[in-house]
Amino acid sequence: MSARLTIALDAMGGDQAPRMVLRGANMARKRFPQVEFLLFGREQDVAPLLDKMKRLKQVTTVVHCDDVVSDSEKPSTALRNGRNSSMRRAIEAVRDGRAAGVVSAGNTGALMAMSKLLLRMLPGIDRPAIASFFPTLRGESVMLDLGANVQCDAQNLVDFTVMGNAFSRSVLGTVAPTYGLLNVGAEDRKGHEALWDARDKLRDLELPGSFHGFIEGDDIAKGTVDVIVTDGFTGNVALKTAEGTAKLITDYLRSTFRSSIFAQIGYLLARRAMQKLRKRVDPRRYNGAIFLGLAGITVKSHGGTDAVGFANAIGVAVDMAREGFLDRIRTDLDKLDRGNGTKTERTNDPKAAAV
Amino acid sequence: MSARLTIALDAMGGDQAPRMVLRGANMARKRFPQVEFLLFGREQDVAPLLDKMKRLKQVTTVVHCDDVVSDSEKPSTALRNGRNSSMRRAIEAVRDGRAAGVVSAGNTGALMAMSKLLLRMLPGIDRPAIASFFPTLRGESVMLDLGANVQCDAQNLVDFTVMGNAFSRSVLGTVAPTYGLLNVGAEDRKGHEALWDARDKLRDLELPGSFHGFIEGDDIAKGTVDVIVTDGFTGNVALKTAEGTAKLITDYLRSTFRSSIFAQIGYLLARRAMQKLRKRVDPRRYNGAIFLGLAGITVKSHGGTDAVGFANAIGVAVDMAREGFLDRIRTDLDKLDRGNGTKTERTNDPKAAAV
Repeated sequence: MSARLTIALDAMGGDQAPRMVLRGANMARKRFPQVEFLLFGREQDVAPLLDKMKRLKQVTTVVHCDDVVSDSEKPSTALRNGRNSSMRRAIEAVRDGRAAGVVSAGNTGALMAMSKLLLRMLPGIDRPAIASFFPTLRGESVMLDLGANVQCDAQNLVDFTVMGNAFSRSVLGTVAPTYGLLNVGAEDRKGHEALWDARDKLRDLELPGSFHGFIEGDDIAKGTVDVIVTDGFTGNVALKTAEGTAKLITDYLRSTFRSSIFAQIGYLLARRAMQKLRKRVDPRRYNGAIFLGLAGITVKSHGGTDAVGFANAIGVAVDMAREGFLDRIRTDLDKLDRGNGTKTERTNDPKAAAV
Repeated sequence: MSARLTIALDAMGGDQAPRMVLRGANMARKRFPQVEFLLFGREQDVAPLLDKMKRLKQVTTVVHCDDVVSDSEKPSTALRNGRNSSMRRAIEAVRDGRAAGVVSAGNTGALMAMSKLLLRMLPGIDRPAIASFFPTLRGESVMLDLGANVQCDAQNLVDFTVMGNAFSRSVLGTVAPTYGLLNVGAEDRKGHEALWDARDKLRDLELPGSFHGFIEGDDIAKGTVDVIVTDGFTGNVALKTAEGTAKLITDYLRSTFRSSIFAQIGYLLARRAMQKLRKRVDPRRYNGAIFLGLAGITVKSHGGTDAVGFANAIGVAVDMAREGFLDRIRTDLDKLDRGNGTKTERTNDPKAAAV
């Protein structure tokens, strides 16, 4: 636990990069004294900033890269042309064992494509899924997929469940997670066929914890289950709808407190409590989406985040590495392969399992 | 505008029916003095309640029906067995011209199936869509479909746009509505094929207002567009996710104000402003989903609502009837048929256009 841990950072990804990345790393440094950084980016941009952060400089090695993957670049173009990009070089550090995980706030599609190519998939998993934490009435839940796979079949949903279940146990520490499939109703015949097939498969599968069946959109915030499983289209819309709604209400709240002198005095008295509330719904707190299914740790920070959010994304990578998440999920997948026939029933490309 | 208007009510639908329905009607009566009610339900349940509401009784005619469509009933069963149900009889009143619209808090699937069968579809529309208002930073937007069609093709999405556009103009009074397709990104190749085809069709179509292209989940609450178009699966999840998130934050807020004596005093001072906020995000305010595409007005109230919410659902039906929504949308659809070839390019069942 106290051993040194190296995290690779893409210094050039994100709206406010590289400044935001370095400041975030500096915050994370205080929180995780055992962590060192491999920082990939243009030396001329990065070095002057790092010179002002002496303590961070002591635990950071800068690796110069000429190129930057832009936000508008297609994943296929980034794969072809981005060979000396900060993003790719940072992922290579994980592949080569020089870093325990990589954090980037850059182009999501490119980060996913490069991570898939360089880190490979876990045995038996076809497609990576993007997972993240959600605040709920009961604490925190994990939701996946948040956008990696726009269309999913039943087996993809089952795979996501296995991965989300392992993630919940290892990173959130839930001993027996509850898990459910996001649908438009709890009844048996609601939704579509992929969901019905996935439900049937999950009923037969003996994962740790318990299967809740179908859940609905309002169950996300209720915390009805620890692991919410859905396709990447629905998950992405749900995530962003929740973020937008949270922002709407906090904006309403702000104007409410400005609406009269009594309300303003009221706010001053309730200020400490309000700060606690703001902290609780701060999207930066939940920054750091994980690419599950990869044989390595890649954490995607929101592109528009600031240093506080980026420090939290680093925290997610550190937690996953420290808790030995990859070993845990490998063990789970092994058990599943032997324990029942699900993996042999796959309708997907059989070659994928050999990767 | 001042002519009498009759609204048919299903007295037996909803968790707290019939009491909630009658109380809601009584509230709506005060707001709309020109409205009369046709109340369908079990006389033995309804009459004693109505006896206590003298004013409501004066503008209400009770029609006894033996049966009630239960929430668990399948739409097909309800169609077969529910011939003397309060829900069906209320819809028949609209079909027969005895009422300008119907409001029910009962089984959504059954209400949709019965409305389709009895009221028929508007010319050129294949499938009805469920639409509702959303509070946004800029005011209110309309979103559809919220759950009637789990899978949609490009033409369905185009039809929903035409209907949502007309609805926004006639009920919300937006002269030139902006409209967009809900997707996982604003870029051209994000999402799936039905969305790309729908976008191409909408670019060619000259609807009033302007087409914004793709929008994302957080654009809903931002109010980026007046009309948000999506398939029924995604729309349902987004709606319920937004509701769940709003509830989560207001619950956080409540516990925040209880967390210290200063916060409690602060709350007392800010009370009036807080009540305004509560009113603004009150889900009852946005109760009343509309089945668009029908050749008649059917409004679905949330099953779990109370009298306040039900009164608002009645208000939606009254607004639609008063503003001549059906005539407006018929004119729009006519124009579209003649103005361009979209309607002749349909890939759907050609018979549907003849209904």
